[in-house]
Amino acid sequence: MARAPVYYADYLKLDRLLTSQQPESLKEGVDAHDEMLFIIVHQAYELWFKQILHELDRVERDFGAVPVSDDAMARIVHDLERIHEILKLTVAQLDVLETMTPFDFLDFRDLLMPASGFQSLQFRAIETRLGLAAETRVPLDDKAIEERLSPADRTALSEARERPTVFVMLDQWLARTPFLDWGGASFRDAYRQAVEKHLARDADFIRADRAMPEEKRERELKAIDKAIASFAAIFAPEGDGGGWRLSGPAVQAALFITLYRDKPAVQPAFRLLATLMDIDETMTLWRYRHALMVERMIGVKIGTGGSSGHAYLRTTAERHRVFADLFRLSTFLIPRAAVPDLPASVQARLGFVYST
Amino acid sequence: MARAPVYYADYLKLDRLLTSQQPESLKEGVDAHDEMLFIIVHQAYELWFKQILHELDRVERDFGAVPVSDDAMARIVHDLERIHEILKLTVAQLDVLETMTPFDFLDFRDLLMPASGFQSLQFRAIETRLGLAAETRVPLDDKAIEERLSPADRTALSEARERPTVFVMLDQWLARTPFLDWGGASFRDAYRQAVEKHLARDADFIRADRAMPEEKRERELKAIDKAIASFAAIFAPEGDGGGWRLSGPAVQAALFITLYRDKPAVQPAFRLLATLMDIDETMTLWRYRHALMVERMIGVKIGTGGSSGHAYLRTTAERHRVFADLFRLSTFLIPRAAVPDLPASVQARLGFVYST
Amino acid sequence: MARAPVYYADYLKLDRLLTSQQPESLKEGVDAHDEMLFIIVHQAYELWFKQILHELDRVERDFGAVPVSDDAMARIVHDLERIHEILKLTVAQLDVLETMTPFDFLDFRDLLMPASGFQSLQFRAIETRLGLAAETRVPLDDKAIEERLSPADRTALSEARERPTVFVMLDQWLARTPFLDWGGASFRDAYRQAVEKHLARDADFIRADRAMPEEKRERELKAIDKAIASFAAIFAPEGDGGGWRLSGPAVQAALFITLYRDKPAVQPAFRLLATLMDIDETMTLWRYRHALMVERMIGVKIGTGGSSGHAYLRTTAERHRVFADLFRLSTFLIPRAAVPDLPASVQARLGFVYST
Amino acid sequence: MARAPVYYADYLKLDRLLTSQQPESLKEGVDAHDEMLFIIVHQAYELWFKQILHELDRVERDFGAVPVSDDAMARIVHDLERIHEILKLTVAQLDVLETMTPFDFLDFRDLLMPASGFQSLQFRAIETRLGLAAETRVPLDDKAIEERLSPADRTALSEARERPTVFVMLDQWLARTPFLDWGGASFRDAYRQAVEKHLARDADFIRADRAMPEEKRERELKAIDKAIASFAAIFAPEGDGGGWRLSGPAVQAALFITLYRDKPAVQPAFRLLATLMDIDETMTLWRYRHALMVERMIGVKIGTGGSSGHAYLRTTAERHRVFADLFRLSTFLIPRAAVPDLPASVQARLGFVYST
Repeated sequence: MARAPVYYADYLKLDRLLTSQQPESLKEGVDAHDEMLFIIVHQAYELWFKQILHELDRVERDFGAVPVSDDAMARIVHDLERIHEILKLTVAQLDVLETMTPFDFLDFRDLLMPASGFQSLQFRAIETRLGLAAETRVPLDDKAIEERLSPADRTALSEARERPTVFVMLDQWLARTPFLDWGGASFRDAYRQAVEKHLARDADFIRADRAMPEEKRERELKAIDKAIASFAAIFAPEGDGGGWRLSGPAVQAALFITLYRDKPAVQPAFRLLATLMDIDETMTLWRYRHALMVERMIGVKIGTGGSSGHAYLRTTAERHRVFADLFRLSTFLIPRAAVPDLPASVQARLGFVYST
Repeated sequence: MARAPVYYADYLKLDRLLTSQQPESLKEGVDAHDEMLFIIVHQAYELWFKQILHELDRVERDFGAVPVSDDAMARIVHDLERIHEILKLTVAQLDVLETMTPFDFLDFRDLLMPASGFQSLQFRAIETRLGLAAETRVPLDDKAIEERLSPADRTALSEARERPTVFVMLDQWLARTPFLDWGGASFRDAYRQAVEKHLARDADFIRADRAMPEEKRERELKAIDKAIASFAAIFAPEGDGGGWRLSGPAVQAALFITLYRDKPAVQPAFRLLATLMDIDETMTLWRYRHALMVERMIGVKIGTGGSSGHAYLRTTAERHRVFADLFRLSTFLIPRAAVPDLPASVQARLGFVYST
Repeated sequence: MARAPVYYADYLKLDRLLTSQQPESLKEGVDAHDEMLFIIVHQAYELWFKQILHELDRVERDFGAVPVSDDAMARIVHDLERIHEILKLTVAQLDVLETMTPFDFLDFRDLLMPASGFQSLQFRAIETRLGLAAETRVPLDDKAIEERLSPADRTALSEARERPTVFVMLDQWLARTPFLDWGGASFRDAYRQAVEKHLARDADFIRADRAMPEEKRERELKAIDKAIASFAAIFAPEGDGGGWRLSGPAVQAALFITLYRDKPAVQPAFRLLATLMDIDETMTLWRYRHALMVERMIGVKIGTGGSSGHAYLRTTAERHRVFADLFRLSTFLIPRAAVPDLPASVQARLGFVYST
Repeated sequence: MARAPVYYADYLKLDRLLTSQQPESLKEGVDAHDEMLFIIVHQAYELWFKQILHELDRVERDFGAVPVSDDAMARIVHDLERIHEILKLTVAQLDVLETMTPFDFLDFRDLLMPASGFQSLQFRAIETRLGLAAETRVPLDDKAIEERLSPADRTALSEARERPTVFVMLDQWLARTPFLDWGGASFRDAYRQAVEKHLARDADFIRADRAMPEEKRERELKAIDKAIASFAAIFAPEGDGGGWRLSGPAVQAALFITLYRDKPAVQPAFRLLATLMDIDETMTLWRYRHALMVERMIGVKIGTGGSSGHAYLRTTAERHRVFADLFRLSTFLIPRAAVPDLPASVQARLGFVYST
């Protein structure tokens, strides 16, 4: 109550914030108007990255608990939706950065060597905490990205690696889903049959299409065989996953959620999966657009960090995706009419107390 | 050449930047997850405001010179286009802030009293340097906005007021336009006649429209009379401006630019006017959307700064517009076919040396 | 199975779609390149309006049922979220339209008289079906908007008026909320006490603020009194609403939802309210931005429909808001710690069967 | 004057436009709410594509003339900027389409076979008229894309191929640039020397970097050698282009424009190049994001057109780029200080008559 009145500039630490732009060109007495933009764009990115990590902290707390309470699930979805909103903004920020031309960038580019955006600890930490495995991370010039980091940042990244990732928490939470035991049968068996029947129908369709060139027909049929095999693998009791990163039970649960999404108890879970895909997609998009921008800015020349920048970025666009399995699920969806009916006992458990 | 290698985190002063978020709720031991977002959004705004001021610095340097060189004009347009791009981003940032609900805001809102976004010196400075006159600024709770500022910030704002504004530099630069002297006649006379003829035609059209209710007809005819009077005023040799903030010669020049925009020597000037309107419009939009957000967040309750927040913001949306005169120009445009032909002597001067 | 193969252009009726642009300027032999843009932007708007109406059809079906099933609630939220996404796109479309300059518009503007966007039946129908009451609609030039419509369109709008609006369905659905009866006490009583206590605290705060000018203090205290009165009115058993458009029980339910949003049974309802505010806000924004654009395009001259366009649009921006009551709720929120605890019996009913 | 009054709905042909949505599911009696969205999104795309083609028509007329007048150049830039603005909107439209889930798409997906977005004649025509060569177009399932088109559409695409493309007109216009003859020396020689000196400095920098692993050093030096060779090729009198699609003189002119962009006579040309890169980048982005969406929607299953959809789309994202050469230019930029000074005679010709 006896608190001192708060002043805007003090609250936001503007004395520090607005004196943290110290262009190298200024130090060198070089005229490089756009270095200020370059600094500020990157600082804005780092502020947003901090916010994303702040959200991931609460997600970790909420999602790591067993069981995840209903209140916590609402918060998790909300926090991830906010992360998605922030990521959309980071894509939009590229519009501002692109008002700098390659020629203007040259005014100060060499002064920054060998600094590089690859050294953003926070961005690496976001990738890691979402679930990008160290061994999946594409090496830069044949070296782990860590070699570019300062010892302190390297330690910080190691620590981030020790924490439970969103991917792993998702995998475990999905695998605990209580609705897959359908009494006598199981969702697994009922759905596997339905999918196989449906894919077989697709194969018949292809075989019957006389206009289709032979070579193509073979390719498509092979794709269906591969789909069936990959599906069988995740449904096998001791399956090796068949190329899935999620465990078999987790994939089964994700399918269940996708199919019965409108049931009250499933809705939050459905939002969760959708938002994780949004995040994955927007990060992929950001990487890709970033790659295009770097190409426009630098051409084929070496990046400020000595890397062959845009090619690297383009590679990571795909290979750093964390939730690709969720996208793959679409392969195994079947039309509404072919989806097995929920047993009454399961159906009842998906509603609210007051609606029984 | 013997420069020390630059490291990303050092270059961006991340040690300062990322430790400048110090939530009041943390100090008070209150759990308020969203205060971090609140801080970071505002810090991101302040970073962008700094960038806008950085651009306005160069605009002032370039646009204050007499004459403004052709190279400088290209830079001015470029810098203003960048400001517009940044403003679009500041509108987009509201999407992120709106992921905070009013109920979550309550967790820490009272702790911030009486701090308020009205205390953003940089935002005030941007308005001022674009050309918002001190006497036009809407008072907040019947007091000048300065009374909310710290002495240091008040001084800084006073200093900003001493600098040449974009509006004033525009006014003077327009008034110097060398193409309005058409030898015997003048652009002024030729165009005034053309406009009056055209507005008279509009009036005839209204008088002839029998379906139009009497009351409305009178209103519309009165509007046309008013338009003619206001137009006459700016064209009178010693005109008082007739409600225009720009001087008569400046308005004439702006009209000239709008009509003959495709001529090489006029194109950069046309871009300049269009970009200033973009800036005005996007700032207006930002204020308006900000007002809507504050209403959603706070209801009719008092703002953190003690103001009746959203109503005030909505008022400023209109009244803080700086370049409204440029929007008014449309009133005096006439169809292409009615526009006077350029005298050959003027036409020649609008081209390039090599194209003569 | 024996269906004929579908061809893209046939499926989309491109032969009709792409021949539906018939510029008036072409008929008159006038060169007006931008009329095509003008037509296509408006046609794109009409396509999206049709989609919004399509969503509102299903919302009406789902939301009009008693009770609204859990599955239906999921669909309603989804459909409204889609409408919001479409509305964001309609705002973005203005960026494209603004590439047309006022001078280019003049090339064909007079040829369109007296057609006007005010004649868009679909837009009127959207407003109506969301819940804009006929008597609230701002008259255009002192006449009902219908007078501008063709007889067929007028009939269609009348029919739209007969249908249950989203606002009315919301009001009724909220009023049926089963969680407000707290046994001995009621949510109403418990919360009213909590709010009054809180607003009294605010009043104390204002009285104790010596730095606050007398005039302002009175104004703020009066605002609080008014807030208490308006709140009392909705909580009175036979309240006249105190300026609320929603019924007392509906407002109470909306408050309940806002405060206990994280409970599973409340989450979909919370999403619903949030999305309706998003829709209201984005439509308001669209109208406002549209007004700015019209001003830029036309100046103070008469609109194509003979109205004083932009001033009218600006008025509707505020007065055509449908869900303003939901924004007002924020006034009556109190900090988490002051919110009454849910009775155990109610709490239990808000969870899932399986989580009891 | 005696024109009949125009009515909004008639002007926009709404009777045709709004009856052109004929869902296949409706014909089959299948309940598929989202097919309407699917149709309307695609129709909105086709409307925008028509607008883009309308702009390309005028660009072709203006840019195909010899010489291109100054007025025409202003229009060309304006029209291309509008195309860019439309393309940004088409990216935003994906946000709306993504509100349809894969499971909802399944409700009607099979009914559309074998129709596919690949059959959009207008999109193909846009690519073609910008300058995508028939031989560069990635075949779909080993066949030319034309094989999917109806005979009429195939003919129309053939006709589009006969027209001068933006790429070709750009190439020719650049090659005619009158400012490359510097009297005794030439821009070509002066700049080649400057670049080679600069790249040699880069090579020295790499050789001196002891921390760089051997393998990497070799790779980077090889890249520089390759850059010099490619550069030499375009500067050779009878060069084969060294991998450039633009002719040698055109590349030289594009470099000239990039370096001396602020000179009045160069500014419109600089805008032109920047806008073409914007268009290329946004189309690339659209293709890429489209690919991600298709993957999310369909998984690895066959597309509606029988293609392995998203993989194909991803391939075209890169390979259908038309103005990649402009991005490559950045490789050959050198810092401002190293850029050769313009001879006085050339400098004079780049200004306006009145500024001499």
